[in-house]
Amino acid sequence: MNNNNDGGRSDTVRIGVIGYGYWGPNIVRNFHSTPNAVVTSVCDLNPKSLDRVSRSYPSIAVTTDPLDILESPEIDAVAVVTPISHHFPLAKLALQNEKHVFVEKPFTKTASEAVQLIEIAERKKLVIMVDHTFLFCGAVRKIRELIDQDVLGALYYYDSMRVNLGLFQHDANVVWDLAPHDLAIMDYLIQGDPQAIVATGEKHVNNVENVAFITIYFADRIIAHLNVNWLSPVKVRSTFICGEKKMLVWNDLEADEKVKVYDKGVERANGKGSDDRVSYRAGDLWVPRVEHVEALTIEAQYFVDCILNSRTPFNDGRAGLRVVQMLEAIDRSMAKMGELAYCSPSAPKAAAAAS
Amino acid sequence: MNNNNDGGRSDTVRIGVIGYGYWGPNIVRNFHSTPNAVVTSVCDLNPKSLDRVSRSYPSIAVTTDPLDILESPEIDAVAVVTPISHHFPLAKLALQNEKHVFVEKPFTKTASEAVQLIEIAERKKLVIMVDHTFLFCGAVRKIRELIDQDVLGALYYYDSMRVNLGLFQHDANVVWDLAPHDLAIMDYLIQGDPQAIVATGEKHVNNVENVAFITIYFADRIIAHLNVNWLSPVKVRSTFICGEKKMLVWNDLEADEKVKVYDKGVERANGKGSDDRVSYRAGDLWVPRVEHVEALTIEAQYFVDCILNSRTPFNDGRAGLRVVQMLEAIDRSMAKMGELAYCSPSAPKAAAAAS
Amino acid sequence: MNNNNDGGRSDTVRIGVIGYGYWGPNIVRNFHSTPNAVVTSVCDLNPKSLDRVSRSYPSIAVTTDPLDILESPEIDAVAVVTPISHHFPLAKLALQNEKHVFVEKPFTKTASEAVQLIEIAERKKLVIMVDHTFLFCGAVRKIRELIDQDVLGALYYYDSMRVNLGLFQHDANVVWDLAPHDLAIMDYLIQGDPQAIVATGEKHVNNVENVAFITIYFADRIIAHLNVNWLSPVKVRSTFICGEKKMLVWNDLEADEKVKVYDKGVERANGKGSDDRVSYRAGDLWVPRVEHVEALTIEAQYFVDCILNSRTPFNDGRAGLRVVQMLEAIDRSMAKMGELAYCSPSAPKAAAAAS
Amino acid sequence: MNNNNDGGRSDTVRIGVIGYGYWGPNIVRNFHSTPNAVVTSVCDLNPKSLDRVSRSYPSIAVTTDPLDILESPEIDAVAVVTPISHHFPLAKLALQNEKHVFVEKPFTKTASEAVQLIEIAERKKLVIMVDHTFLFCGAVRKIRELIDQDVLGALYYYDSMRVNLGLFQHDANVVWDLAPHDLAIMDYLIQGDPQAIVATGEKHVNNVENVAFITIYFADRIIAHLNVNWLSPVKVRSTFICGEKKMLVWNDLEADEKVKVYDKGVERANGKGSDDRVSYRAGDLWVPRVEHVEALTIEAQYFVDCILNSRTPFNDGRAGLRVVQMLEAIDRSMAKMGELAYCSPSAPKAAAAAS
Repeated sequence: MNNNNDGGRSDTVRIGVIGYGYWGPNIVRNFHSTPNAVVTSVCDLNPKSLDRVSRSYPSIAVTTDPLDILESPEIDAVAVVTPISHHFPLAKLALQNEKHVFVEKPFTKTASEAVQLIEIAERKKLVIMVDHTFLFCGAVRKIRELIDQDVLGALYYYDSMRVNLGLFQHDANVVWDLAPHDLAIMDYLIQGDPQAIVATGEKHVNNVENVAFITIYFADRIIAHLNVNWLSPVKVRSTFICGEKKMLVWNDLEADEKVKVYDKGVERANGKGSDDRVSYRAGDLWVPRVEHVEALTIEAQYFVDCILNSRTPFNDGRAGLRVVQMLEAIDRSMAKMGELAYCSPSAPKAAAAAS
Repeated sequence: MNNNNDGGRSDTVRIGVIGYGYWGPNIVRNFHSTPNAVVTSVCDLNPKSLDRVSRSYPSIAVTTDPLDILESPEIDAVAVVTPISHHFPLAKLALQNEKHVFVEKPFTKTASEAVQLIEIAERKKLVIMVDHTFLFCGAVRKIRELIDQDVLGALYYYDSMRVNLGLFQHDANVVWDLAPHDLAIMDYLIQGDPQAIVATGEKHVNNVENVAFITIYFADRIIAHLNVNWLSPVKVRSTFICGEKKMLVWNDLEADEKVKVYDKGVERANGKGSDDRVSYRAGDLWVPRVEHVEALTIEAQYFVDCILNSRTPFNDGRAGLRVVQMLEAIDRSMAKMGELAYCSPSAPKAAAAAS
Repeated sequence: MNNNNDGGRSDTVRIGVIGYGYWGPNIVRNFHSTPNAVVTSVCDLNPKSLDRVSRSYPSIAVTTDPLDILESPEIDAVAVVTPISHHFPLAKLALQNEKHVFVEKPFTKTASEAVQLIEIAERKKLVIMVDHTFLFCGAVRKIRELIDQDVLGALYYYDSMRVNLGLFQHDANVVWDLAPHDLAIMDYLIQGDPQAIVATGEKHVNNVENVAFITIYFADRIIAHLNVNWLSPVKVRSTFICGEKKMLVWNDLEADEKVKVYDKGVERANGKGSDDRVSYRAGDLWVPRVEHVEALTIEAQYFVDCILNSRTPFNDGRAGLRVVQMLEAIDRSMAKMGELAYCSPSAPKAAAAAS
Repeated sequence: MNNNNDGGRSDTVRIGVIGYGYWGPNIVRNFHSTPNAVVTSVCDLNPKSLDRVSRSYPSIAVTTDPLDILESPEIDAVAVVTPISHHFPLAKLALQNEKHVFVEKPFTKTASEAVQLIEIAERKKLVIMVDHTFLFCGAVRKIRELIDQDVLGALYYYDSMRVNLGLFQHDANVVWDLAPHDLAIMDYLIQGDPQAIVATGEKHVNNVENVAFITIYFADRIIAHLNVNWLSPVKVRSTFICGEKKMLVWNDLEADEKVKVYDKGVERANGKGSDDRVSYRAGDLWVPRVEHVEALTIEAQYFVDCILNSRTPFNDGRAGLRVVQMLEAIDRSMAKMGELAYCSPSAPKAAAAAS
C-alpha cells in the first residue's frame, strides 16, 4: 500500500492482476474503478490479451512474466485469475512476497494446498479473498438478510439446480465447474459444518462427469441438494430454500422477480396425543426488491476495505477451503456410486492450530 | 364376463370397485363409460360415499362388505382402490375367486406380496393391471413414441422433479406417495433393469421423510434422478430426458406446451487423436401436439381389452413389482444415508420360473 | 318464497332454471347446493339435457315448456340461461309473473330491452341479477378491496387482453362474446360513467368481427382499453390496472399468483418551476393470497340473500344495462372505423325517473 | 470513399459520427469493426463524451463542431445520432456536402422534412439509411423469411404490445418514443400502404401522452394494433402475427424461444350453402432457431455495402418517411379522440415525381 509519509495508515491498494482471459477483464474493470484501489499491472501469456489491456487502460503496465507482479515492491495485492492449476503456486509466491491475494474460485485443486496458503497468510497477517462472486449479488445478500432477521425460521433444506448446455472441459468435471457457486452460497447461508456428502453422477460424452446429483447432510436435519448438469437443453438457475416459518425460491434467470418469499408452511397438530397429523398454511407471496449493483463491484470494494482495515473477509481462505473440501468429498463419493464421504473437518482446525 | 349362449367369446366385462374415497369416483366414472364394460357394484366402508354412488349411478349396487364383490359370480374383474395396506389381501382374494384385478399404485407394500399375486394370476391366467395412470397420458405416450422412433437417440439421463406443499401422511413417506409415478414412467420409457439405487432424504415435520433425492443407475451409463418433496412452496412437475440426438423437457403443469423437443446436443470432436474437445449443436425447438384425452379413460379401455383378448398389459403385475422393488431399495438406501441398494432382480425371475 | 305460517319473512327461495346447455349445469349445481335455496324445476328444449338433469338431481322436475316455470305459483325466482335472444321475452314474462330473475350475460340484445326489464322490476320491487360471474371471483374481489383501501391511489388506466382461438359464432361478434366480462369488471372497478368509446376491429373469417380493440374514456383522464380476439394462437387473460400509488397485473391463467401488486410509480418532480421531469419509484412486489372458492357459488348465495333481504345487488339490471350500452356503442364505433360513440347515459336516468 | 488511383471502385467508407450520448457508442463500436469502413471522427458537444471516445479509440479524431465532420472532404458518410430535432438540419447539410447519411429513428420531426431529405439524396444519388435497428434482429429477419416462404399465408392481423416503466420525456410522447420500432417492423413485414389510423391515448403524468392504443387499417382486411405504454409495472415486448395458414408470437424478452410458430387456424366450412360455421385446426408448435448476432452489426455492414455497391437500402428515407407519416397521423387522431387519420400517401409520390 501507498504508505503515507508519517508511517500512518495507508490509503490506496496497488493491485496486480495475473490472467486476462474470460474473467480477468471483469476483475480489472472493477478494481480499476474501485475507490482507494489502483490496478498497476496486468500479466497474461497471450500478447493479444495484453494489447486489449493497453488499449482500454493506457495507464496499466503489462507483462508476460508473473514475477514482474509477484516480486514487485510497488504492488500490495495480487489477483489470481488463471486456470485452477496455477492458483496455488501463484498465490503462494504472492503471499511469500507479502502480498494480499484475491483468488478465483475454486480456491485450489486440493484441500492441502488451501491449508498451506491459509497458514502462510495467517502467519504473515495477509488477506486471502476467494472470488465467490455470487455471495455479493443482490439476491444472496437479500436471502442472507432474511435469514439473519429470522424471517425463514430454522432451515429445513436447500435445493438448487444449475444446469445448461456446456461448457465441457476435459480436465475438470461439471462439479468443479458449476458446483463451487452453489457450495459457496450454501455455506454462506446455512453456516454449519457439512457432516457427510453423497454424490452420484455420470460421464456421457468424455472422461469427466457431465451430470451430478449431490446431497449434503448438516446437523439439525438440515439437508442440501445440488443438481449440476452440462447437458441440459434449457438453462436453469433456481434454488429452493425452506425454513420452518417461510420458504423462498430464488430464480436467478428472472430479470426482476428473483427472490420470492412464500408465507407457506406445515405445522404439526400439537396437543393431539399420539396423532401425527399436520396442517398447512398458505398466505401471501412477497417479492422483495433486490439491488441491481454488479456483484463484483461490491466484492472488489470489500477486498480493498478488508486490506485497508485489516479485517478478515467472510469469503476468506477458510471459506475457500470449505468449498474445496466439499468438492473433494463429492469426487470421492461420486467415484464410488454415492458412498458416504466426509469433508475432513479436522484439516482446518489443524491449520488454525498451526497459526 | 357375460358369456354368450354358444360358449363363445365373452363381450362385456362386469366390474366391481372396492374403495370410493379420493380416486375411486374417477375409476367408477371411467369404467362406467367404457364400452364393453359395466360397473355392477361398488364397496366402501363409508355409507356417505355409497350414497354418492347411488345418486350418481342408480344402476350400480352398493355394499359395505368387500366379499359381496370378491365372491360374486356376477363379477369378472375387481378394481382395488383402497389404501395400500389393503391391496394385497383384497387382490389375492379376488384372484383366488378367478377375478381379474385392477390395483391402485403402488401395487403392494412389499415385493414379496407382489410376487405372490403375480404367481396366482399367472397360474390362473388372470390379468393384473396396476394403475400407473400417467403411462396413459398424452405426454408420456408421445415421449414413448419419440423414443420408439429413435428421435432422441441413445438415452443419457432422466431427471424429474415432483414437488409441492403436502400431502403429509403419517404412515408413508414422500417416496411412496410421489415417486411411484416417476418410477413407473421411468421404467416404461427407459425399459432397462435398474442396477443400483442411491437415495437420501430427511424428516422435518414428523417421523417420515418429506423430501428425498433418488439416483438410479442403469446399464450403458443411463442415469435417472428423482426429486420428490412435500414441503415445496411451489408445485413443480418437470422431467428432463436427454438422448444422444435430442433432448426434451416435459412440464406437466403447462396447459398446452407440455413436451418440448430440443434439437440440441454435444458431440465429441472425432479424429483428433487424443483430444477430448466437444462441440455443441443447437437447432430448432419443436412442441408436438399432445392428445388431451383423460389418461384413465384410455387405461380403463385398455384393461377391458386385455381381459377380452387375453393379452398381458404392459402395466401388469411385473411392472408394479418393479416399482415396489425400487421403492423398497430407496427406503433401504435412504435409511443408511445413500448406501447403494439393489432391486433384488432375482425375485421376478424366480416368480417367472415358478409359473 | 316459502312463506312461514305466521305470514312473516320467507326463508327459502324456490328457483326454476330455463336452459341447460353449456352454462346451465353450473347454475343448477350451484343453486342446488345454496343454503336457503331449492331448484324445483329445469326447462330445456332438448330431452337429452333433461335426462341429464333427472339422473343427477332426481328431485328436480323437468319440462320442455318454459311457461311451466314462468307461470308456476311454486317458483319465486327464474334463472334465464339461454342464448341472448331469449333473455328479454323470458325475463319479461318472469317479472310480469312476480318472479325475481337471474339472467345470463349479456343482459339483453338492446339497451331498450334492458330499460324495460328494469322498469318492470323496479315497479314490482323484484330483484334482477345479471350473471357477471367474474365479479365474484377471488381476484376481482381482491382488486376491488385494494381499490377500496386506496392501495392503488387514483386510477390511471385499465388495460385488458382476452384472446384465444375460437369460439366463432355466426350471429354475434367477438365483442359480444368476450368483452362483456371485461366491461362488467371494468365497470365494477372504475365505478365511473364511460364518456365515449372508440372501437376498431376486423372480420377475417366470416361476417362478424373476430378481433376488436376498444378504448373507453372516463372522467379524470381514466382510460380503459380492451383487446378481444377469437383468432389468437395462445390464450391470454391479463389485465393491467395502474393507479397513482401502485400498479397491478391480474393474470387469470396463473394457478396461484393471479394478482401481482407492484410498488412502482412515477412522480412529477415538484417545486422545480417549469420543469417537467419525472422520477421513478420501484419497490417490492406483493402477491396477495386470493380465495379459491368458485365464483358462481358466491354469486348464487348473493342472489338468494338479495331476495330474502330485499336488497338490490350491485350486479343488478342497471349494471347489466351499462354493459349493453357499451356493447352497442362499441358496435356503432367499430362499424364506422373508430368513430367516437357515446353510451346514451340519458337512458338509465329516464328509467330511474319512471320508477 | 477512398478512391483507387485508377479512378475505379472505392473500397472503404470513411464515417463521421455526430452524437455520442446513449446510442452513439453502439454506432461507433459497430462501424469501427465493420469491414470496409473506418470511423474517422466523432462529434459531441460534451467534452466528457469525447474523452471516452479517445480512450476507447485512440485513432478516432474528436470535435465539438459538427461542421468539422459535415464539411470534411475526408468523410464519405455521416451518422446522425442526435436528438430528433437535429436530424433534419444535420442530415441536410451532410447530403448537401455529398455525404451519405445514416440517421437515427424516427427519421425526422415532420414528413415534409423527410421529403426534402429524400429529394436531395435522390438528386445527388446518395444513400439515406434510417436506423430502424430491429429490422436487422434475428427474430424479425426470421419472421420476414417465414412470410416470404408463405408459411403464414395471407396476413390477418399484427398486434404488438411494447410497454414498460419510463422513459418519460417532456417533449415527445410515448408514441414517438416507442412506436417507431413497431411501425417500422410492421411496415417491413406487411409491406402495404396503411389506409387509415385510429389512435387513442392519455396523459397522466405530464403534458404528453404516456399510454396509447393505435389501430392501423390496411387493404385486404389486414389490421394492425399497437399498445405502447410508459407506465406499465412490467416490461412486455410481444407481437402476435396471424395469417390464414399459421400464427406466430414473437416475445423479444425470451432468451431463447423468441419466435413461436403455431400450426393453428380456423377455416370456413365450405360447401355448406349459406352456413357460416367454422372449424379449428391445432397442430404442433415450432420454435425456429433465431440468429443471435447483434442487429446493429448487420445493419452497419449493410449500410457500407449499399454505399459501395450503389444500392438503395430497404430501410431508406422512404421507409423512414412512412414511419414519420404514421406518427403524424397517430398524433392527429389521438388529439381528436380516435378520429380517423390518413397518412398523406400522396407526399412520397410527389417526391418520387420530383426526382
